[in-house]
Parts: sequence; C-alpha cells; structure tokens
Amino acid sequence: MQVSSKPVKGMRDFEPLEARLRDHVRQHILKSYQSFGFQYIETPVMENIALLQNAEGGENLNMLFKVLKRGEKLNLDQAVQHENDLVDYGLRFDLTLPLARFYANNHAKLPTPFKSIQMGYVWRAERAQKGRFRQFMQCDIDYLGSASPNVEIELIHVTASTLHALGFKRYRVRLNDRRVLESLANYCGIDASKLGAVLVTLDKLDKIGVDGVKTELAKQTLDDASIDKLMNIIHSFEAGDITLDTLEQHIPSVDENVQKDLQKIMNASEALSKGHYKISFDLSLVRGMGYYTGPIFEIESEDFGSALAGGGRYDNMIGKFLKGRQVPACGFSIGFERILHILSEQNFNIPGEQKQLLVIYDEKEVSDITALFALAEQTRSQGHCVSIEIKQKNVKQQLENFKKLRVDEFAQYRHGDETLSFKDLD
Amino acid sequence: MQVSSKPVKGMRDFEPLEARLRDHVRQHILKSYQSFGFQYIETPVMENIALLQNAEGGENLNMLFKVLKRGEKLNLDQAVQHENDLVDYGLRFDLTLPLARFYANNHAKLPTPFKSIQMGYVWRAERAQKGRFRQFMQCDIDYLGSASPNVEIELIHVTASTLHALGFKRYRVRLNDRRVLESLANYCGIDASKLGAVLVTLDKLDKIGVDGVKTELAKQTLDDASIDKLMNIIHSFEAGDITLDTLEQHIPSVDENVQKDLQKIMNASEALSKGHYKISFDLSLVRGMGYYTGPIFEIESEDFGSALAGGGRYDNMIGKFLKGRQVPACGFSIGFERILHILSEQNFNIPGEQKQLLVIYDEKEVSDITALFALAEQTRSQGHCVSIEIKQKNVKQQLENFKKLRVDEFAQYRHGDETLSFKDLD
Repeated sequence: MQVSSKPVKGMRDFEPLEARLRDHVRQHILKSYQSFGFQYIETPVMENIALLQNAEGGENLNMLFKVLKRGEKLNLDQAVQHENDLVDYGLRFDLTLPLARFYANNHAKLPTPFKSIQMGYVWRAERAQKGRFRQFMQCDIDYLGSASPNVEIELIHVTASTLHALGFKRYRVRLNDRRVLESLANYCGIDASKLGAVLVTLDKLDKIGVDGVKTELAKQTLDDASIDKLMNIIHSFEAGDITLDTLEQHIPSVDENVQKDLQKIMNASEALSKGHYKISFDLSLVRGMGYYTGPIFEIESEDFGSALAGGGRYDNMIGKFLKGRQVPACGFSIGFERILHILSEQNFNIPGEQKQLLVIYDEKEVSDITALFALAEQTRSQGHCVSIEIKQKNVKQQLENFKKLRVDEFAQYRHGDETLSFKDLD
Repeated sequence: MQVSSKPVKGMRDFEPLEARLRDHVRQHILKSYQSFGFQYIETPVMENIALLQNAEGGENLNMLFKVLKRGEKLNLDQAVQHENDLVDYGLRFDLTLPLARFYANNHAKLPTPFKSIQMGYVWRAERAQKGRFRQFMQCDIDYLGSASPNVEIELIHVTASTLHALGFKRYRVRLNDRRVLESLANYCGIDASKLGAVLVTLDKLDKIGVDGVKTELAKQTLDDASIDKLMNIIHSFEAGDITLDTLEQHIPSVDENVQKDLQKIMNASEALSKGHYKISFDLSLVRGMGYYTGPIFEIESEDFGSALAGGGRYDNMIGKFLKGRQVPACGFSIGFERILHILSEQNFNIPGEQKQLLVIYDEKEVSDITALFALAEQTRSQGHCVSIEIKQKNVKQQLENFKKLRVDEFAQYRHGDETLSFKDLD
C-alpha cells in the first residue's frame, strides 16, 4: 500500500530553517517571560474528554480531535449510540483549560498568586484555509490568584516588552472590558442571554462592516430600536466621540469602578511603554472566548494590521476545578504562528546566531577521520557550528543545498592538513 | 459533573522546577547537536493511521493512540466492523517513522547526506509502571544518505560528547551488529524467519538470565542443539573468551567486512573519547526494534546501570517511502526521560542559571507600581530574573512557596524607595 509522504491535513513539517527560527522565537519568549518571574509549566497534550467538553470552549468543541478508547474499554459488539461512547481522551484545543486543571491539581505547592508560562501545541480540526493550521503553537502567560488591575498592567508590560525585544516596533494596545460591553448591551435593551451571540457578531465589525453586523444582529431577533441604539454608540466610538473619560455619558449604567480600573491600566501602561507603543480604550474590542469577565486586551501591529497577542481576565474558570473557591485569573497569549509568519516573510535573521561552517572531505582519501574531528573541535570551541561532511559526487549540488541552510563558509580537508581554511560558500 | 483534576493516565504535569530542568536539558542537547552541524526539524504529532500501521513498529502498534474520524467521515449508522473504520490518524509512537516520511517529502531541498535533529513527544499506551510514561520525550539524531562507518563514528562521538557536557562521566559504549547476530543465528542452525523472535528473547538475557532465555527459546520450537550452540557462544562471550578480533573463530560465517567496519568504529571512537568513556564490542547487545540492518550501539551508564542512549543503522526503511530508492540511514537516540530522572534524583543545578529574585509590595500602600517596575527593570538588566509580587496576608507562606521554586533573594518595596535591597530568602 502506497501511503502519502505529506503531513496529515492542515499540519506542517518544519524544515531546518523554519524549525530553527521557531526554536529561537520560542526561547526568546520563554527567557523574556522568565526574566519577569513567570514560571514555565507543562501539561500533557491529552485531557479527559469530559473535561474538554464541559469547558466553555465554544466552537472549539466542534473541532476536537478525539482519541479512541483502547483494549477492553472499546466495545464495538453493541451498536454505537454516540461517538462519545468510543473515546476517552481528546487533544487540548487551548492551554487555558489544561492550566485550570493543572492549578487545581498542584495549587497547594505553588505560590499565590501564581504566574505561569505555557508554550505548547494545541489542535483544532478547522476547515483548511490560508494561515489556519490544525496543529499550532500557543504561548500563554497567566496570572492566577489576584483581582488587582496591577495584574493587567504587568501582563501588558511583559508581553509588549517581549515583542519589542523580538524586533516588533510599531504596535498599539487595545483595551476594553467585558463589563463595559455588558453595560452597553443592557443599556440598549439587549437580553443578557443574547449577549454572547451579540458580542460574537460585534467582533465581526472589521470583517463584515456596520451593515453586515446589523443584518446579523437582526437575525438574532433583536428589535430595531436596540440595534440602532447599539450601532449608534459603536458608530460614535469609531468617530472618536467616546473616550474612557466620557463613557458614562453614553452608557450611563457603566460601573464607576470598572472605569477607574481601566484608567489605572491605561495610565500605568502608558508610563511603562517608554513611548514604544500606544494604549487606547477600544469599545469595539470583543475577543472571542466566552469565559472573559473583566478587562480584555490585544496588541495590534500597525505594520501588519493584525493582532500579535490577545488576552483578558477570566475570574470564574479556575474556581470550577476547586469546588467553587474563587480564583481570579488573567492571561495574555502571543500569536506564535502569526509572529512566525511575519518574521519569515521579513527574512528575519536570528540575532547573535552562531556561524555555520562546513568541512568536506573525500572518504577515499581520508581513511582516519579522527584528526579532522580534532581540528573541527578546535573551531567549535571558538563558538561556531562545524559540520563535517563526506564529499558527494555532485559536490556543487551538495554545497548549493547547504547554502540554502545558511551555511556561511566551507573548507576542504585533506589527509595531513593541520589547519582548516574556510572560505565563503558562493 | 465532577471531573478529575489529575492528568490522564500515565501522563504527567510538570511543575516549575521540573519544567525548567526539562527545558534546560532539551536546549543543552539541541545546542550541542547543532554545534556538530545537525539540523533541527519538526513533524506533526499525528500521522496517517495507515502509515503508522504499515511500519515495523512491533509491539508499539498495539499501543497506538488512534484519533477518531470527524464529521461526515465518521459513519456510526452502520455496524462497525473494525476499529480502523473509525479512525484516520494516530499519534506517533516514535520519531523515526515520521522522519522517514519527512525525508521522502522534503529530500530534494535537503543536503545529501542529511543530518537531522528531532526532539519531541511520542505516545504509547503502555501498561502503567514505574518509570514508564504514555507521553514521553525522544531526542534523536539521524544521519540519512551514507553507508560509511564514519557515520556511526560521528553519531557515537556527538552523543557521547553531549552527555559528557551534561555532566555524565562514567559510561561505556556497547557496540554490536545485526549482521553478526544474523551470522550467529545462521551458524547455530536457527531459521531466518525465527531470528526476530530469537533476538527479542536474547535481549532479555539481563532480565531473565540464561535459563529463562533457554526456556523461552525452546518455546519458539528451536531444537536443543541450536539452543545449546547459541547459548554456548553467548556464554563464552560473557566469560570474555570472544572478542571482535577472534569473532570468526567462534562464528565462522561472519562477514570479514562487517568485522572491519566494527573495528574501524571501535578504533576511531576510542581515539575520540579522550579517555572519557570506553567502547566495547558486545555480542549480547540486541536492541528491540526490528528495522536495524547493521551496527547497533548503546551508551550505558556505569553509575546507574542503565542505557542513556541507543541506536543503530537501518538501511531499508527510508527507501520504502521513496519508491524503493535505497537511502542508507543510521540514528542515535538519547533516553531523555531517563536522563531527566537521573538529574532530578541528583538535585542537579542548572549551570549558569540566572539568579531568581523577588520583590514584594503592599498593594494598599503602593498605588502606582510604575516606579517599582522601573527599579526591577534595572535589576533585570544586570542579568537576573526579577518577579514583582503583591504581598499576601500570609506572607510567610508566600515566601515559603517561592523558596521551593529556588528563588534566591527577596526585597520589600515601599512607596518612594529608590533602590531595592535584596536579602536571602530563609
């Protein structure tokens, strides 16, 4: 049977240059987060299917990769009523739910608050489309156990600093709050039960425009008056007529403390930005996940017009795993695949990367390679990467393929040579 | 519904200290391999189920985690004949098979020979037992496209050097060859079709002893004469009466070229070892996998009495993905989980690890944290990790939990402080 040599649908092989860049970016982010005292943790890629399906995972639950039961647990003799009879585990669709389980399992040994780093793959069986993958890396920091707005200030500062050090220069931080959006919905006479769907529709403003949003809202059986009221406010905001200061003039029901917290986050972030980025209140920022309860935020690249990172406060999730004990929580996630895509497009050079050197030798002429190995070792001890390669018949092609891997220089070794003379590979 | 907060069976959460150590070891191995010119690549965790099941995976095929088909592809209306009707993908059980697929998919763009690094998780639904996990890390280097014994010399040198730099001192390299074992079986009148099972049984010599091996061999319908002949030779070897030099006196059918290649590998490895380790021919070394075709080798710790790394030549696997074109291949795999276990037991300190500092402040007293953030930034720029923490009611417990994470020093910040005074955390 002939089996395809392609990776499975929607997943990718990473060739040397891509894999090297991914590892560099991963390490950059990890080291940066660690320098701020966040703690790297890891969880398994699989979770119990019941855990995944009880989550507020929204559409992600329709994209689960489920794992077949094994051995006696799998009973195919009887008619199968439901696919859930067949599976026991699933692959995680994000890192937040595993974090909640991890914290419930380990919190007694961990400091309070606990500041975590997670970097790992997640899986979603998305419809294949450009820039969407079924296996992709997430890089999250989360701050568990404090309701202080200082948490948001730190998460924004840490994430923005990390992106800045990676070479991203022109970006802005957008800030909103789920409670502001709830007040807004309430003020417009939108039923609380419909808020979730309304928020998701609002989130499409960029994609489908004001008219598209109106049409979709109408389908959600909102009355015309509510829609108009809502869209007028959003419109005023877009026109620059609503700021955080003047929010209660437009949405009278908005909580004063919410406003104060947002103002505090804005002021501190502004002070910490050193002018590298702007932070602005953005009433149109919604964020997809259903579990947010407070401030939500995104870092948006002005050069690439897309979000580089997103996050928010979710005070009601962790407690569900701890018999209802409340554990306030807030997280910020860097869009790793997006970042990688941008850096690749820019032919990003890894700063301070070691020189890649090549030594080729003719196997027929050099019978004992130990002298060559010793010479290479000397060069390696100067901080370079040195690859020893057996000369192939088509040496031109061989060197050409190494050039693609950004090998800088090469040397030919002959029996008895006491030094290696490197020259440019071109 | 109450869902357990434990990780799924046989898999592990890694708390901060463990995760930090794992990342350090992973990076150490990666950087070391890269310095020798090996190229890091990555493949997805899932492969097509047909690919996995067509592999010479031996018992691993019984331990597959299979992934349920999704959407219309999953048909539960009809009676399910076989579980394979239900699944399309599986989680990889090793990194060698994905490498073969990767190479078939990408070889045209890669240098020949190609020297790869892979570091990633693999999954096997093993029966739960101490030291065995269902998700575990593998660290492989492979050398594709050369049949030269210089390949084995390099793989052994690179792996041994990497372990040495990680602090492992007393170990030896065991070397054998599948062709020697085949000659041995042939000489003893053992049918070629039975060789696989015989080798697996021989591999248990350490565990079940000479008598156990004899009993098991008898079950494989070998005649007594063959068993005795085989066991006598193994016994002579154990007694030190058989060396690589005298091999053909005991196994007359052994190929002279095989012997020469092994001698070359022995001599060069000895020369390259700088006396750090010994290499010895070991007729009792078998290695589990069915796909080996030539030299096989292990690095065994003398301190811990267990294998730290294992590998060998497998010249017939890669070609199966390339329409039969022969691609000789050889690989060496570090036992990552074993290494981690040993280092953890030894309370291994990460060399050159940054100092972990802590600053706590009273949220009620410090209303604006930006000045504190600037102070912390100064300390961070001296190369330390600095975590800013909100003081908790039970500050003693808070500090105690940070001590467990090996935080070295802490400072208390008060509004208006212009420096941070760190003191030991004890």
